[in-house]
Amino acid sequence: MFEEKGGVKRPLILVTNDDGYKAAGIEALVEMVKPFGNVVVVAPEEGYSGMSHAITIKVPLRLKQRKHSEGVKFYTINGTPVDCVKLAMSQLFTNRLPDLLVSGINHGSNSSISIIYSGTMAAAIEGCLYNIPSIGFSLLDYDENPDFEASIEYGRIILKQVLDNGISRGCCLNVNIPVLPMKSIKGIRVTRQNKGTWREEFEKRTDPRGVDYYWLTGYFHNEEPDATDTDEYWLNNGYISVVPVQVDLTNYSEIDKIKKWNLENINVYAEKNK
Amino acid sequence: MFEEKGGVKRPLILVTNDDGYKAAGIEALVEMVKPFGNVVVVAPEEGYSGMSHAITIKVPLRLKQRKHSEGVKFYTINGTPVDCVKLAMSQLFTNRLPDLLVSGINHGSNSSISIIYSGTMAAAIEGCLYNIPSIGFSLLDYDENPDFEASIEYGRIILKQVLDNGISRGCCLNVNIPVLPMKSIKGIRVTRQNKGTWREEFEKRTDPRGVDYYWLTGYFHNEEPDATDTDEYWLNNGYISVVPVQVDLTNYSEIDKIKKWNLENINVYAEKNK
Repeated sequence: MFEEKGGVKRPLILVTNDDGYKAAGIEALVEMVKPFGNVVVVAPEEGYSGMSHAITIKVPLRLKQRKHSEGVKFYTINGTPVDCVKLAMSQLFTNRLPDLLVSGINHGSNSSISIIYSGTMAAAIEGCLYNIPSIGFSLLDYDENPDFEASIEYGRIILKQVLDNGISRGCCLNVNIPVLPMKSIKGIRVTRQNKGTWREEFEKRTDPRGVDYYWLTGYFHNEEPDATDTDEYWLNNGYISVVPVQVDLTNYSEIDKIKKWNLENINVYAEKNK
Repeated sequence: MFEEKGGVKRPLILVTNDDGYKAAGIEALVEMVKPFGNVVVVAPEEGYSGMSHAITIKVPLRLKQRKHSEGVKFYTINGTPVDCVKLAMSQLFTNRLPDLLVSGINHGSNSSISIIYSGTMAAAIEGCLYNIPSIGFSLLDYDENPDFEASIEYGRIILKQVLDNGISRGCCLNVNIPVLPMKSIKGIRVTRQNKGTWREEFEKRTDPRGVDYYWLTGYFHNEEPDATDTDEYWLNNGYISVVPVQVDLTNYSEIDKIKKWNLENINVYAEKNK
Protein backbone atom coordinates (compact mmCIF):
# COMPACT_ATOMS: atom_id res chain seq x y z
CA MET A 1 0.00 0.00 0.00
CA PHE A 2 2.94 2.32 0.78
CA GLU A 3 6.37 1.90 -0.73
CA GLU A 4 8.82 0.68 1.92
CA LYS A 5 11.99 2.74 1.53
CA GLY A 6 15.11 0.65 2.05
CA GLY A 7 13.00 -2.23 3.32
CA VAL A 8 12.03 -0.34 6.49
CA LYS A 9 8.48 -1.08 7.54
CA ARG A 10 6.84 1.97 9.06
CA PRO A 11 3.78 1.28 11.22
CA LEU A 12 0.57 1.31 9.20
CA ILE A 13 -2.16 3.36 10.86
CA LEU A 14 -5.88 3.33 10.02
CA VAL A 15 -7.69 6.57 10.91
CA THR A 16 -11.48 6.90 11.04
CA ASN A 17 -14.18 8.86 12.88
CA ASP A 18 -17.94 9.34 13.18
CA ASP A 19 -18.18 13.07 12.45
CA GLY A 20 -17.38 12.57 8.76
CA TYR A 21 -14.24 13.16 6.72
CA LYS A 22 -14.64 16.94 6.69
CA ALA A 23 -14.57 17.26 10.49
CA ALA A 24 -11.71 19.24 12.06
CA GLY A 25 -11.25 16.38 14.53
CA ILE A 26 -10.05 13.88 11.95
CA GLU A 27 -7.59 16.42 10.54
CA ALA A 28 -6.18 16.85 14.04
CA LEU A 29 -6.01 13.08 14.46
CA VAL A 30 -4.01 12.69 11.23
CA GLU A 31 -1.62 15.36 12.51
CA MET A 32 -1.31 13.45 15.81
CA VAL A 33 -0.43 10.11 14.22
CA LYS A 34 1.61 11.14 11.15
CA PRO A 35 4.98 11.07 12.94
CA PHE A 36 4.39 7.43 13.90
CA GLY A 37 3.85 5.83 10.50
CA ASN A 38 2.01 5.69 7.20
CA VAL A 39 -1.59 6.76 7.49
CA VAL A 40 -4.72 5.49 5.74
CA VAL A 41 -7.85 7.54 6.41
CA VAL A 42 -11.17 5.79 5.74
CA ALA A 43 -13.98 7.97 7.03
CA PRO A 44 -17.73 8.32 6.53
CA GLU A 45 -18.89 10.79 3.90
CA GLU A 46 -21.29 12.32 6.39
CA GLY A 47 -21.57 12.72 10.15
CA TYR A 48 -22.65 9.51 11.89
CA SER A 49 -22.73 10.59 15.52
CA GLY A 50 -24.87 8.39 17.75
CA MET A 51 -24.68 5.50 15.27
CA SER A 52 -23.04 3.16 17.77
CA HIS A 53 -22.07 -0.19 16.25
CA ALA A 54 -24.55 0.08 13.35
CA ILE A 55 -23.67 -1.66 10.08
CA THR A 56 -25.18 -1.02 6.66
CA ILE A 57 -27.01 -3.98 5.16
CA LYS A 58 -29.85 -2.42 3.16
CA VAL A 59 -27.82 -0.32 0.72
CA PRO A 60 -24.52 -1.13 -0.98
CA LEU A 61 -21.36 0.66 0.09
CA ARG A 62 -19.14 2.72 -2.19
CA LEU A 63 -15.49 3.45 -1.52
CA LYS A 64 -14.22 6.78 -2.89
CA GLN A 65 -10.58 7.65 -3.21
CA ARG A 66 -9.89 11.26 -2.17
CA LYS A 67 -6.77 13.37 -2.48
CA HIS A 68 -3.71 11.55 -1.12
CA SER A 69 -0.72 13.42 0.32
CA GLU A 70 2.79 12.39 1.41
CA GLY A 71 2.38 9.49 3.83
CA VAL A 72 -1.42 9.81 3.95
CA LYS A 73 -3.94 7.93 1.79
CA PHE A 74 -7.50 9.20 1.97
CA TYR A 75 -10.79 7.38 1.30
CA THR A 76 -14.44 7.91 2.18
CA ILE A 77 -17.43 5.60 2.21
CA ASN A 78 -21.19 6.13 2.31
CA GLY A 79 -21.56 4.18 5.55
CA THR A 80 -21.14 4.10 9.29
CA PRO A 81 -17.83 4.15 11.22
CA VAL A 82 -18.01 0.35 11.63
CA ASP A 83 -18.63 -0.03 7.89
CA CYS A 84 -15.48 2.05 7.31
CA VAL A 85 -13.37 -0.32 9.41
CA LYS A 86 -14.83 -3.46 7.85
CA LEU A 87 -14.57 -2.28 4.25
CA ALA A 88 -11.05 -0.96 4.81
CA MET A 89 -9.91 -4.30 6.25
CA SER A 90 -11.49 -6.23 3.41
CA GLN A 91 -10.58 -4.03 0.41
CA LEU A 92 -7.56 -1.88 1.33
CA PHE A 93 -5.49 -3.89 3.80
CA THR A 94 -5.36 -7.04 1.72
CA ASN A 95 -1.62 -7.68 2.14
CA ARG A 96 -1.00 -6.34 5.60
CA LEU A 97 -3.39 -5.35 8.41
CA PRO A 98 -2.85 -1.99 10.14
CA ASP A 99 -0.61 -1.91 13.22
CA LEU A 100 -2.89 0.60 14.89
CA LEU A 101 -6.41 1.97 14.52
CA VAL A 102 -7.35 5.42 15.82
CA SER A 103 -10.80 6.95 15.75
CA GLY A 104 -11.81 10.57 16.31
CA ILE A 105 -10.95 13.09 17.49
CA ASN A 106 -14.63 13.17 18.38
CA HIS A 107 -16.29 16.54 18.83
CA GLY A 108 -17.85 15.84 22.22
CA SER A 109 -17.52 13.47 25.16
CA ASN A 110 -17.64 9.68 24.98
CA SER A 111 -17.12 9.14 28.69
CA SER A 112 -19.42 7.15 30.98
CA ILE A 113 -22.49 5.63 29.28
CA SER A 114 -22.01 7.75 26.14
CA ILE A 115 -19.64 5.05 24.94
CA ILE A 116 -22.52 2.75 24.01
CA TYR A 117 -24.07 5.31 21.63
CA SER A 118 -20.74 6.38 20.14
CA GLY A 119 -19.72 5.71 16.56
CA THR A 120 -16.17 6.80 17.41
CA MET A 121 -15.81 4.07 20.02
CA ALA A 122 -17.67 1.51 17.89
CA ALA A 123 -14.95 1.90 15.25
CA ALA A 124 -12.28 1.32 17.91
CA ILE A 125 -14.14 -1.73 19.24
CA GLU A 126 -14.43 -3.08 15.69
CA GLY A 127 -10.68 -2.57 15.28
CA CYS A 128 -9.91 -4.68 18.31
CA LEU A 129 -12.08 -7.47 16.90
CA TYR A 130 -9.42 -7.66 14.17
CA ASN A 131 -6.86 -7.90 16.99
CA ILE A 132 -5.45 -4.46 16.10
CA PRO A 133 -4.53 -2.09 18.96
CA SER A 134 -7.30 0.52 18.76
CA ILE A 135 -7.95 3.85 20.43
CA GLY A 136 -10.88 6.25 20.32
CA PHE A 137 -10.15 9.90 21.12
CA SER A 138 -12.84 12.38 22.18
CA LEU A 139 -12.49 16.03 23.14
CA LEU A 140 -15.23 17.31 25.46
CA ASP A 141 -15.91 20.26 23.16
CA TYR A 142 -18.80 20.41 20.70
CA ASP A 143 -17.32 23.39 18.86
CA GLU A 144 -16.67 22.78 15.14
CA ASN A 145 -13.14 24.15 15.43
CA PRO A 146 -11.90 23.56 18.96
CA ASP A 147 -8.31 23.78 20.22
CA PHE A 148 -6.76 20.32 19.65
CA GLU A 149 -3.27 21.17 20.98
CA ALA A 150 -3.53 19.19 24.24
CA SER A 151 -5.34 16.31 22.51
CA ILE A 152 -2.51 15.97 19.98
CA GLU A 153 0.37 16.22 22.46
CA TYR A 154 -1.08 13.89 25.07
CA GLY A 155 -2.48 11.63 22.35
CA ARG A 156 1.07 11.05 21.06
CA ILE A 157 2.24 10.02 24.54
CA ILE A 158 -0.53 7.42 24.73
CA LEU A 159 0.06 6.27 21.12
CA LYS A 160 3.72 5.64 21.79
CA GLN A 161 2.93 3.42 24.75
CA VAL A 162 0.32 1.50 22.78
CA LEU A 163 2.76 0.91 19.89
CA ASP A 164 5.47 -0.18 22.37
CA ASN A 165 3.32 -2.35 24.67
CA GLY A 166 0.27 -3.41 22.65
CA ILE A 167 -3.18 -3.87 24.16
CA SER A 168 -4.65 -7.21 25.24
CA ARG A 169 -6.82 -9.07 22.75
CA GLY A 170 -10.47 -8.04 22.86
CA CYS A 171 -9.64 -4.70 24.50
CA CYS A 172 -9.30 -1.12 23.21
CA LEU A 173 -8.89 2.33 24.78
CA ASN A 174 -11.44 5.09 25.31
CA VAL A 175 -9.52 8.37 25.68
CA ASN A 176 -11.39 11.53 26.67
CA ILE A 177 -9.79 14.97 26.92
CA PRO A 178 -11.21 17.83 29.01
CA VAL A 179 -11.78 21.27 27.43
CA LEU A 180 -8.80 23.02 28.95
CA PRO A 181 -5.76 24.87 27.63
CA MET A 182 -2.55 22.82 27.76
CA LYS A 183 -1.24 24.51 30.89
CA SER A 184 -4.37 23.64 32.88
CA ILE A 185 -4.37 19.93 32.04
CA LYS A 186 -2.97 18.13 35.06
CA GLY A 187 -2.09 14.83 33.36
CA ILE A 188 -3.52 11.41 32.50
CA ARG A 189 -5.47 8.93 34.64
CA VAL A 190 -6.34 5.30 33.85
CA THR A 191 -9.96 5.05 34.99
CA ARG A 192 -13.19 3.10 34.73
CA GLN A 193 -16.52 3.83 33.05
CA ASN A 194 -18.67 5.96 35.34
CA LYS A 195 -22.20 4.65 36.04
CA GLY A 196 -24.71 7.06 34.57
CA THR A 197 -27.54 7.45 32.09
CA TRP A 198 -28.90 9.97 29.65
CA ARG A 199 -32.22 11.26 30.82
CA GLU A 200 -34.26 12.06 27.80
CA GLU A 201 -36.12 15.24 27.40
CA PHE A 202 -37.74 15.03 24.03
CA GLU A 203 -38.81 18.36 22.64
CA LYS A 204 -42.32 18.01 21.27
CA ARG A 205 -43.32 20.21 18.33
CA THR A 206 -46.20 20.29 15.87
CA ASP A 207 -45.62 20.50 12.12
CA PRO A 208 -47.60 22.80 9.77
CA ARG A 209 -50.01 19.92 9.05
CA GLY A 210 -50.82 19.60 12.75
CA VAL A 211 -48.85 16.39 13.34
CA ASP A 212 -46.65 16.09 16.44
CA TYR A 213 -42.95 15.26 16.19
CA TYR A 214 -40.14 14.87 18.70
CA TRP A 215 -36.50 15.96 18.80
CA LEU A 216 -34.16 13.97 21.00
CA THR A 217 -32.40 16.16 23.55
CA GLY A 218 -31.37 15.10 27.07
CA TYR A 219 -28.93 15.55 29.91
CA PHE A 220 -26.43 13.29 31.62
CA HIS A 221 -27.34 11.94 35.03
CA ASN A 222 -24.34 10.79 37.08
CA GLU A 223 -25.33 7.82 39.23
CA GLU A 224 -22.16 7.87 41.31
CA PRO A 225 -21.19 11.52 41.79
CA ASP A 226 -19.04 10.65 44.84
CA ALA A 227 -16.84 8.02 43.14
CA THR A 228 -13.20 9.08 42.76
CA ASP A 229 -11.96 6.44 40.29
CA THR A 230 -14.20 7.09 37.28
CA ASP A 231 -13.68 8.82 33.94
CA GLU A 232 -16.21 11.51 34.92
CA TYR A 233 -14.38 12.26 38.16
CA TRP A 234 -10.94 12.69 36.62
CA LEU A 235 -12.22 14.64 33.61
CA ASN A 236 -13.96 17.05 35.98
CA ASN A 237 -10.67 17.43 37.84
CA GLY A 238 -8.59 18.44 34.83
CA TYR A 239 -7.17 15.06 33.77
CA ILE A 240 -7.29 13.12 30.52
CA SER A 241 -9.13 9.82 31.07
CA VAL A 242 -8.03 6.47 29.60
CA VAL A 243 -10.56 3.63 30.05
CA PRO A 244 -9.70 0.11 28.82
CA VAL A 245 -12.82 -1.20 27.09
CA GLN A 246 -13.76 -4.81 26.36
CA VAL A 247 -16.00 -6.52 23.81
CA ASP A 248 -17.17 -9.25 26.20
CA LEU A 249 -20.49 -8.01 27.63
CA THR A 250 -21.03 -11.03 29.91
CA ASN A 251 -21.82 -10.15 33.52
CA TYR A 252 -19.99 -13.06 35.15
CA SER A 253 -21.13 -12.41 38.71
CA GLU A 254 -24.74 -12.52 37.56
CA ILE A 255 -24.31 -16.00 36.05
CA ASP A 256 -24.24 -17.64 39.48
CA LYS A 257 -27.27 -15.69 40.68
CA ILE A 258 -29.32 -16.72 37.67
CA LYS A 259 -28.23 -20.34 37.94
CA LYS A 260 -30.07 -20.35 41.30
CA TRP A 261 -33.36 -19.76 39.49
CA ASN A 262 -33.18 -23.46 38.56
CA LEU A 263 -33.88 -22.84 34.89
CA GLU A 264 -31.37 -25.52 34.04
CA ASN A 265 -33.52 -28.35 35.42
CA ILE A 266 -36.50 -27.73 33.17
CA ASN A 267 -37.40 -29.69 30.05
CA VAL A 268 -40.84 -28.71 28.80
CA TYR A 269 -41.29 -31.64 26.43
CA ALA A 270 -40.24 -34.26 28.99
CA GLU A 271 -42.55 -32.79 31.62
CA LYS A 272 -45.54 -32.83 29.28
CA ASN A 273 -44.86 -36.42 28.25
CA LYS A 274 -43.96 -38.11 31.51
CA MET B 1 -52.38 3.87 30.74
CA PHE B 2 -54.51 0.78 31.43
CA GLU B 3 -57.54 0.78 33.69
CA GLU B 4 -56.79 -1.11 36.88
CA LYS B 5 -59.76 -3.37 37.58
CA GLY B 6 -60.58 -3.53 41.29
CA GLY B 7 -57.34 -1.72 42.13
CA VAL B 8 -55.23 -4.70 41.01
CA LYS B 9 -52.01 -3.61 39.33
CA ARG B 10 -51.06 -5.98 36.56
CA PRO B 11 -47.42 -5.86 35.47
CA LEU B 12 -46.84 -3.35 32.68
CA ILE B 13 -44.75 -4.80 29.86
CA LEU B 14 -43.02 -2.86 27.09
CA VAL B 15 -42.46 -4.87 23.89
CA THR B 16 -40.16 -3.78 21.08
CA ASN B 17 -37.93 -5.29 18.38
CA ASP B 18 -35.57 -4.42 15.54
CA ASP B 19 -37.29 -6.24 12.68
CA GLY B 20 -40.17 -3.73 12.59
CA TYR B 21 -43.75 -3.89 13.83
CA LYS B 22 -44.90 -6.17 11.01
CA ALA B 23 -42.45 -8.96 11.85
CA ALA B 24 -43.84 -12.32 12.91
CA GLY B 25 -41.37 -12.31 15.81
CA ILE B 26 -42.99 -9.41 17.63
CA GLU B 27 -46.41 -11.00 17.27
CA ALA B 28 -45.02 -14.15 18.88
CA LEU B 29 -43.46 -12.06 21.66
CA VAL B 30 -46.79 -10.38 22.43
CA GLU B 31 -48.38 -13.82 22.63
CA MET B 32 -45.57 -14.91 25.00
CA VAL B 33 -45.98 -12.03 27.44
CA LYS B 34 -49.76 -11.37 27.36
CA PRO B 35 -50.59 -13.77 30.21
CA PHE B 36 -48.21 -11.84 32.48
CA GLY B 37 -49.65 -8.34 32.29
CA ASN B 38 -50.74 -5.37 30.23
CA VAL B 39 -48.69 -4.93 27.09
CA VAL B 40 -47.49 -1.79 25.30
CA VAL B 41 -45.84 -2.41 21.93
CA VAL B 42 -43.59 0.39 20.64
CA ALA B 43 -41.76 -0.87 17.56
CA PRO B 44 -39.90 0.61 14.60
CA GLU B 45 -41.93 1.22 11.45
CA GLU B 46 -39.27 -0.54 9.42
CA GLY B 47 -36.64 -3.21 9.94
CA TYR B 48 -33.59 -1.93 11.82
CA SER B 49 -31.41 -5.03 11.99
CA GLY B 50 -27.74 -4.32 12.59
CA MET B 51 -28.52 -0.87 13.98
CA SER B 52 -26.94 -1.65 17.34
CA HIS B 53 -27.38 1.17 19.88
CA ALA B 54 -27.94 3.86 17.22
CA ILE B 55 -30.09 6.84 18.13
CA THR B 56 -31.77 9.28 15.74
CA ILE B 57 -30.59 12.85 16.08
CA LYS B 58 -30.76 14.25 12.53
CA VAL B 59 -34.47 13.79 11.86
CA PRO B 60 -37.40 14.23 14.24
CA LEU B 61 -39.29 11.21 15.51
CA ARG B 62 -42.99 10.60 15.06
CA LEU B 63 -45.08 8.34 17.28
CA LYS B 64 -48.05 6.67 15.57
CA GLN B 65 -50.86 4.98 17.43
CA ARG B 66 -51.87 1.71 15.75
CA LYS B 67 -54.82 -0.58 16.42
CA HIS B 68 -55.10 -1.45 20.14
CA SER B 69 -56.63 -4.71 21.33
CA GLU B 70 -57.70 -6.07 24.72
CA GLY B 71 -54.70 -5.69 27.04
CA VAL B 72 -52.37 -4.59 24.21
CA LYS B 73 -51.61 -1.00 23.15
CA PHE B 74 -49.74 -0.63 19.88
CA TYR B 75 -47.50 2.20 18.65
CA THR B 76 -44.81 2.60 16.01
CA ILE B 77 -42.09 5.17 15.49
CA ASN B 78 -39.87 6.11 12.55
CA GLY B 79 -36.70 5.34 14.45
CA THR B 80 -34.34 2.72 15.80
CA PRO B 81 -35.08 0.20 18.58
CA VAL B 82 -33.28 2.43 21.10
CA ASP B 83 -35.35 5.42 19.93
CA CYS B 84 -38.47 3.31 20.58
CA VAL B 85 -37.45 2.65 24.17
CA LYS B 86 -36.46 6.26 24.85
CA LEU B 87 -39.55 7.82 23.29
CA ALA B 88 -41.84 5.30 25.00
CA MET B 89 -40.33 6.07 28.40
CA SER B 90 -40.61 9.79 27.86
CA GLN B 91 -44.03 10.05 26.22
CA LEU B 92 -46.07 6.96 27.11
CA PHE B 93 -44.89 5.85 30.55
CA THR B 94 -45.26 9.22 32.18
CA ASN B 95 -47.05 7.99 35.32
CA ARG B 96 -45.54 4.55 35.77
CA LEU B 97 -42.50 2.91 34.19
CA PRO B 98 -42.86 -0.62 32.78
CA ASP B 99 -42.14 -3.55 35.09
CA LEU B 100 -40.50 -5.46 32.27
CA LEU B 101 -39.07 -4.81 28.82
CA VAL B 102 -38.87 -7.55 26.20
CA SER B 103 -37.33 -7.23 22.76
CA GLY B 104 -37.64 -9.55 19.77
CA ILE B 105 -38.28 -12.28 18.99
CA ASN B 106 -35.42 -11.59 16.63
CA HIS B 107 -35.32 -13.45 13.33
CA GLY B 108 -31.75 -14.70 13.62
CA SER B 109 -29.04 -15.26 16.21
CA ASN B 110 -27.71 -12.67 18.63
CA SER B 111 -25.25 -15.00 20.33
CA SER B 112 -21.51 -14.41 20.66
CA ILE B 113 -20.23 -11.17 19.11
CA SER B 114 -23.49 -10.60 17.19
CA ILE B 115 -24.79 -8.92 20.35
CA ILE B 116 -22.80 -5.75 19.64
CA TYR B 117 -24.44 -5.25 16.21
CA SER B 118 -27.90 -6.16 17.42
CA GLY B 119 -30.78 -3.70 17.62
CA THR B 120 -32.79 -6.27 19.58
CA MET B 121 -30.20 -6.41 22.35
CA ALA B 122 -29.58 -2.64 22.22
CA ALA B 123 -33.24 -2.11 23.14
CA ALA B 124 -32.85 -4.52 26.08
CA ILE B 125 -29.66 -2.76 27.19
CA GLU B 126 -31.42 0.61 26.97
CA GLY B 127 -34.23 -0.82 29.10
CA CYS B 128 -31.84 -1.80 31.85
CA LEU B 129 -30.44 1.77 31.85
CA TYR B 130 -33.91 2.73 33.10
CA ASN B 131 -33.46 0.04 35.76
CA ILE B 132 -36.22 -2.08 34.20
CA PRO B 133 -35.68 -5.87 34.01
CA SER B 134 -35.07 -6.39 30.30
CA ILE B 135 -34.73 -9.43 28.06
CA GLY B 136 -33.86 -9.81 24.39
CA PHE B 137 -35.11 -12.97 22.65
CA SER B 138 -33.63 -14.28 19.41
CA LEU B 139 -34.51 -17.41 17.46
CA LEU B 140 -31.68 -18.78 15.31
CA ASP B 141 -33.93 -18.88 12.26
CA TYR B 142 -33.92 -16.25 9.50
CA ASP B 143 -37.20 -17.50 8.05
CA GLU B 144 -39.96 -14.86 7.91
CA ASN B 145 -42.45 -17.24 9.52
CA PRO B 146 -40.57 -19.68 11.71
CA ASP B 147 -41.99 -21.97 14.39
CA PHE B 148 -42.07 -19.94 17.63
CA GLU B 149 -43.62 -22.65 19.84
CA ALA B 150 -40.49 -23.45 21.84
CA SER B 151 -39.51 -19.78 22.07
CA ILE B 152 -42.87 -18.91 23.58
CA GLU B 153 -43.01 -21.79 26.07
CA TYR B 154 -39.45 -21.50 27.31
CA GLY B 155 -39.65 -17.71 27.15
CA ARG B 156 -42.52 -17.78 29.64
CA ILE B 157 -40.47 -19.89 32.05
CA ILE B 158 -37.66 -17.32 31.94
CA LEU B 159 -40.08 -14.37 32.17
CA LYS B 160 -41.68 -15.76 35.31
CA GLN B 161 -38.30 -16.02 37.02
CA VAL B 162 -37.35 -12.50 35.99
CA LEU B 163 -40.65 -11.08 37.31
CA ASP B 164 -40.21 -13.03 40.59
CA ASN B 165 -36.50 -12.40 41.15
CA GLY B 166 -35.62 -9.24 39.21
CA ILE B 167 -32.26 -8.70 37.51
CA SER B 168 -29.38 -6.75 39.03
CA ARG B 169 -29.07 -3.07 38.12
CA GLY B 170 -27.09 -2.47 34.92
CA CYS B 171 -27.71 -6.02 33.69
CA CYS B 172 -30.13 -7.60 31.20
CA LEU B 173 -30.57 -11.01 29.57
CA ASN B 174 -29.64 -12.21 26.09
CA VAL B 175 -31.77 -15.27 25.32
CA ASN B 176 -31.09 -17.29 22.16
CA ILE B 177 -33.17 -20.25 21.03
CA PRO B 178 -31.90 -22.98 18.67
CA VAL B 179 -33.91 -23.93 15.57
CA LEU B 180 -35.37 -27.17 16.85
CA PRO B 181 -38.84 -28.57 17.38
CA MET B 182 -39.97 -28.53 21.02
CA LYS B 183 -39.24 -32.20 21.61
CA SER B 184 -35.61 -31.82 20.54
CA ILE B 185 -34.83 -28.87 22.82
CA LYS B 186 -32.95 -30.25 25.79
CA GLY B 187 -33.43 -27.33 28.18
CA ILE B 188 -31.89 -24.01 29.25
CA ARG B 189 -28.28 -23.13 30.11
CA VAL B 190 -26.96 -19.94 31.74
CA THR B 191 -23.84 -19.21 29.71
CA ARG B 192 -21.31 -16.59 28.69
CA GLN B 193 -20.66 -14.72 25.44
CA ASN B 194 -18.52 -16.84 23.13
CA LYS B 195 -15.38 -15.18 21.76
CA GLY B 196 -15.73 -14.81 18.02
CA THR B 197 -15.83 -12.37 15.15
CA TRP B 198 -17.62 -11.82 11.89
CA ARG B 199 -15.21 -12.23 9.02
CA GLU B 200 -16.31 -9.97 6.26
CA GLU B 201 -16.58 -11.05 2.73
CA PHE B 202 -17.82 -8.04 0.83
CA GLU B 203 -19.34 -8.89 -2.50
CA LYS B 204 -18.00 -6.44 -5.05
CA ARG B 205 -20.20 -5.54 -8.01
CA THR B 206 -20.16 -2.89 -10.70
CA ASP B 207 -23.19 -0.72 -11.46
CA PRO B 208 -24.42 0.08 -15.00
CA ARG B 209 -22.36 3.30 -14.92
CA GLY B 210 -19.17 1.34 -14.27
CA VAL B 211 -18.83 2.28 -10.59
CA ASP B 212 -17.95 -0.40 -8.03
CA TYR B 213 -20.11 -1.05 -5.00
CA TYR B 214 -19.98 -3.52 -2.12
CA TRP B 215 -22.58 -5.62 -0.31
CA LEU B 216 -21.78 -6.68 3.23
CA THR B 217 -21.92 -10.44 3.67
CA GLY B 218 -19.73 -12.50 6.01
CA TYR B 219 -19.46 -15.60 8.16
CA PHE B 220 -19.00 -16.21 11.87
CA HIS B 221 -15.57 -17.29 13.05
CA ASN B 222 -15.60 -19.04 16.44
CA GLU B 223 -12.37 -18.20 18.32
CA GLU B 224 -12.94 -20.81 21.02
CA PRO B 225 -14.56 -23.83 19.39
CA ASP B 226 -13.45 -26.09 22.26
CA ALA B 227 -15.02 -24.06 25.09
CA THR B 228 -17.93 -25.83 26.81
CA ASP B 229 -19.45 -22.94 28.79
CA THR B 230 -20.38 -20.51 26.00
CA ASP B 231 -23.65 -19.57 24.32
CA GLU B 232 -22.40 -21.03 21.02
CA TYR B 233 -21.55 -24.37 22.63
CA TRP B 234 -24.91 -24.87 24.34
CA LEU B 235 -26.92 -23.65 21.34
CA ASN B 236 -25.07 -26.14 19.15
CA ASN B 237 -25.98 -28.84 21.67
CA GLY B 238 -29.72 -28.23 21.63
CA TYR B 239 -30.10 -25.87 24.60
CA ILE B 240 -31.56 -22.38 24.95
CA SER B 241 -28.82 -19.97 26.04
CA VAL B 242 -29.29 -17.24 28.66
CA VAL B 243 -26.37 -14.76 28.93
CA PRO B 244 -26.46 -12.01 31.56
CA VAL B 245 -25.23 -8.85 29.82
CA GLN B 246 -23.84 -5.70 31.40
CA VAL B 247 -23.57 -2.06 30.33
CA ASP B 248 -20.20 -1.47 31.99
CA LEU B 249 -17.59 -2.01 29.23
CA THR B 250 -14.57 -1.39 31.48
CA ASN B 251 -11.91 -4.09 31.31
CA TYR B 252 -10.83 -4.00 34.96
CA SER B 253 -7.90 -6.38 34.67
CA GLU B 254 -6.42 -4.20 31.93
CA ILE B 255 -6.45 -1.10 34.17
CA ASP B 256 -3.51 -2.37 36.25
CA LYS B 257 -1.52 -3.31 33.15
CA ILE B 258 -1.95 0.13 31.62
CA LYS B 259 -1.11 1.87 34.89
CA LYS B 260 2.36 0.31 34.52
CA TRP B 261 2.93 2.36 31.35
CA ASN B 262 3.54 5.28 33.72
CA LEU B 263 1.20 7.60 31.84
CA GLU B 264 0.03 8.98 35.16
CA ASN B 265 3.37 10.66 35.95
CA ILE B 266 3.43 12.87 32.85
CA ASN B 267 2.52 16.56 32.71
CA VAL B 268 3.45 18.03 29.34
CA TYR B 269 3.17 21.67 30.38
CA ALA B 270 5.23 21.26 33.55
CA GLU B 271 7.96 19.40 31.66
CA LYS B 272 8.21 22.08 28.98
CA ASN B 273 8.39 24.86 31.58
CA LYS B 274 10.71 23.43 34.21
